[in-house]
Amino acid sequence: MQHFNTDDIQGLSKLYRLNLINSITGYKSANMIGTKSNSGEENVAIFSSITHLGSNPPLLHFTLRPNTVPRDTYKNIKENYFFTVNHVSLGQIDQAHHTSAKYDENISEFDQTQLESEYRLDWHAPFVKGSPICLGCRYLNEYEIKENGCVLIIAAIEHVFVEDQLLQADGWVKLESGEVVAINGLDGYALPQLQKRLEYARPNDIIKKP
Amino acid sequence: MQHFNTDDIQGLSKLYRLNLINSITGYKSANMIGTKSNSGEENVAIFSSITHLGSNPPLLHFTLRPNTVPRDTYKNIKENYFFTVNHVSLGQIDQAHHTSAKYDENISEFDQTQLESEYRLDWHAPFVKGSPICLGCRYLNEYEIKENGCVLIIAAIEHVFVEDQLLQADGWVKLESGEVVAINGLDGYALPQLQKRLEYARPNDIIKKP
Repeated sequence: MQHFNTDDIQGLSKLYRLNLINSITGYKSANMIGTKSNSGEENVAIFSSITHLGSNPPLLHFTLRPNTVPRDTYKNIKENYFFTVNHVSLGQIDQAHHTSAKYDENISEFDQTQLESEYRLDWHAPFVKGSPICLGCRYLNEYEIKENGCVLIIAAIEHVFVEDQLLQADGWVKLESGEVVAINGLDGYALPQLQKRLEYARPNDIIKKP
Repeated sequence: MQHFNTDDIQGLSKLYRLNLINSITGYKSANMIGTKSNSGEENVAIFSSITHLGSNPPLLHFTLRPNTVPRDTYKNIKENYFFTVNHVSLGQIDQAHHTSAKYDENISEFDQTQLESEYRLDWHAPFVKGSPICLGCRYLNEYEIKENGCVLIIAAIEHVFVEDQLLQADGWVKLESGEVVAINGLDGYALPQLQKRLEYARPNDIIKKP
């Protein structure tokens, strides 16, 4: 096995450290966040930190660095609290990844890629056409993570749109049926295949050590 | 597409809502957290909320509900600040999932499963033998998420152990080479296959809309 301690990690080149630490916590979700400013400018940006926070009430969280990456996303969310979460499917990888390019502010990634915005119900923020799962979310709160200056955004999931073939009889969403991808590090895109669903675990229902 | 709004979600049965909301944010990392109390009792529990927070300094975060699930994990971490993160590989799925069973406090999942603890360097907390990636982490801080009572734990990554064949020349860790799995919802385990790594995205390097 390879081993890196704190000093080793500190001594790595910036790019090596970025690659190592971004991939070392495991697979991450691949989502595009859609927003719209109060003056009508749309924005879409890829995120890999969106995570389930709770089911009742339905909440998610994600992190961002206000001083570096997707500033438009943060600005728009703070203006009106609306955003959308749109899963990246296999055919969208290249276009979704390109939303991480640093365009000038007020330039919409919907104009710079083949991704298309789509409006549903009366939701202020744009969804991404063709995503197999789309969520309508509302900003609730933020926590400044003082350890590195990141901001953790907490949001309510107010609308769930999911393609018919993904939704199973017990509410479980089979991501594989939408060719939903996962992110490995900063730039690796992987397509998961379901191996098994397991029963709710109860004490003593498994073979212990001999 | 199927659609659920806030009222629909609220009206679902508890299990249906758990399945739906736990799977609707996308794939999650599959990790086992290893801890040891000051009096020497080991514990290991599966988590799906561990996420990269930053690379310099190397940080991760995860959430837990102190009043419900893995209390031993939280108690041990608060006692001495040491824990380990161990990735679940294909052959470990059943054993890792079983660590979510609600055993009485002070019962070690290392005794109730075929998982084996392993000590490295002088790290207080046990690693899980056979995991292709293991991290030695130290608790730094916690934030109470008042929206649902969860606690967000922030930790420093102080040791990285990664099997040789996963580590690429630029520091990127190819999770596929360790048969690292991802979690879909509460109980689905998927094996991702790498589709592509993409270049750092720069403005105007992609085909726009016609």
